[in-house]
Amino acid sequence: MSSQQQAQPLLIVGSVAFDSVETPHGRADMTLGGSASYAGIAASYFARPRVVGIVGEDFADHHMRKLSDHGVDVRGIERAQGKTFHWKGRYHENMKDRDTLETSLNVFQHFHPSIPDAYRDTPYVLLGNIDPQLQLSVLDQAQGARFVAMDTMNFWINTAREPLLDVVKRIDLLFINDEEAMQLADERSVVGAAEKLLRMGPKFVVVKRGEHGAVLFGPQLTLFVPAMMLANVVDPTGAGDTFAGGFLGQLSRTGALDRSALASALTWGTVMASFTVEAFSVDGICGLSAEAIAERRKTLVEMVRY
Amino acid sequence: MSSQQQAQPLLIVGSVAFDSVETPHGRADMTLGGSASYAGIAASYFARPRVVGIVGEDFADHHMRKLSDHGVDVRGIERAQGKTFHWKGRYHENMKDRDTLETSLNVFQHFHPSIPDAYRDTPYVLLGNIDPQLQLSVLDQAQGARFVAMDTMNFWINTAREPLLDVVKRIDLLFINDEEAMQLADERSVVGAAEKLLRMGPKFVVVKRGEHGAVLFGPQLTLFVPAMMLANVVDPTGAGDTFAGGFLGQLSRTGALDRSALASALTWGTVMASFTVEAFSVDGICGLSAEAIAERRKTLVEMVRY
Repeated sequence: MSSQQQAQPLLIVGSVAFDSVETPHGRADMTLGGSASYAGIAASYFARPRVVGIVGEDFADHHMRKLSDHGVDVRGIERAQGKTFHWKGRYHENMKDRDTLETSLNVFQHFHPSIPDAYRDTPYVLLGNIDPQLQLSVLDQAQGARFVAMDTMNFWINTAREPLLDVVKRIDLLFINDEEAMQLADERSVVGAAEKLLRMGPKFVVVKRGEHGAVLFGPQLTLFVPAMMLANVVDPTGAGDTFAGGFLGQLSRTGALDRSALASALTWGTVMASFTVEAFSVDGICGLSAEAIAERRKTLVEMVRY
Repeated sequence: MSSQQQAQPLLIVGSVAFDSVETPHGRADMTLGGSASYAGIAASYFARPRVVGIVGEDFADHHMRKLSDHGVDVRGIERAQGKTFHWKGRYHENMKDRDTLETSLNVFQHFHPSIPDAYRDTPYVLLGNIDPQLQLSVLDQAQGARFVAMDTMNFWINTAREPLLDVVKRIDLLFINDEEAMQLADERSVVGAAEKLLRMGPKFVVVKRGEHGAVLFGPQLTLFVPAMMLANVVDPTGAGDTFAGGFLGQLSRTGALDRSALASALTWGTVMASFTVEAFSVDGICGLSAEAIAERRKTLVEMVRY
């Protein structure tokens, strides 16, 4: 967690957005969000993330600085005419289900990710939860990629299943939540779904289960990490992206892919996600001390030491 | 797991019943069920369980032998005129939600647990999920009890809250599922609920989360155990009772109450529950080899070794 200097670069492609979120605990309007923002900041504690995304003219410098102050390389964030992608949603009392009140793609509608030449040799790549066609385009450009992870969601399973499966074939690790795993694999159990998804291409499948933790499936390998036990969840937005960013950050830091490296990545990803949900926007993961992060990981590991 | 000889006796009071269950995987009619049956057989792998319950004239010898063949002391199971308690239910496609189609209390309606003199000094007591008034009566009789655990459910929270809280005051460990914990404590988070429940009396609260594992809360202590990852869940009935039986069995075997003993009990309880859900009735936990049980625990512990 301390030696970003040795870390391999990590390329993150995803959305940079403004979120307006209402939860039973309060609300936040037009705050920094998007999969690449959460993943980038989370990864910055472990690695040197390079973010590729698009923002509009309304994306103020202080938003960009939230990323760059964390050591996120923002040279790949294109600024286009028009407004930044805006998502507006409201969480139910259970803090899990949510209604989307508004999705204004704005400049994101015309996003054609162009990987800067200087980024094309990046060994670790995280394809955030975006249109599978764009994920494919990134794969074609990222010629130096040695390890590619992707995230996706039910929207793409429903509307772009074929290109999504094309991406799945070409990646090393798939992040997906439990219901979506069963939907994509057409299976009734998480285990059955994971086994089927592993046969579709990726070496590893990480099934995200929200407050119930995450499971990594691989060749002769099943690893489980519980979520942190939190008394005050303020806003779950971005938890999955943060988890993926922390996971890939840690993986690129160590450069290894063995059981120990994967297990470690699972725990650091979980710890970062636990900070995200305790505040709105990216506030929970901005400016954390190494000690605070390490302390929380210790609590996590202690919970499952028998 | 091997030395039942040294184990402290364990008293289990609960229902002995016939279950008729329909799940998406099949059905079973009038098979052995009830909280004391599941808990008793599960505990028999670790300890010397003594079961107190009631059955009717239709409870055939071969049913009783399923318990006694496992070393369960059945002298406390009263045989009364009439029929045995019968529960009939149907599980939904998700294998979690279920509809109760029939509850015929039969002889159970007039159950007044009478603890045989020879049982009154039993140091470990598990109060199965029955009417809190009956649980109180057992507490009054079990004068040699050193460690008392109880299980309960939403039905008693809704219909017998006051006597239930009286029992909670007098016990050492409460088993309760996550939604019921929040309901009983009137809290919105599992952590908040557990903290409040701990202030109501018990030293420990074990929150059961089904396929998502279980969490033990105690003084400066949080322990988590994931559920086993199973591809084929056939019938979830009795999983919670089995978990409690395995947990208490292991605890009474070691005689300790430190962190290590509690953590160990959590894992063995989880392993036993995983066998229960793979078959109808108590079939999944009958006649298991010590090797099969130990092998599964190894898999469980490996999942969270980072």
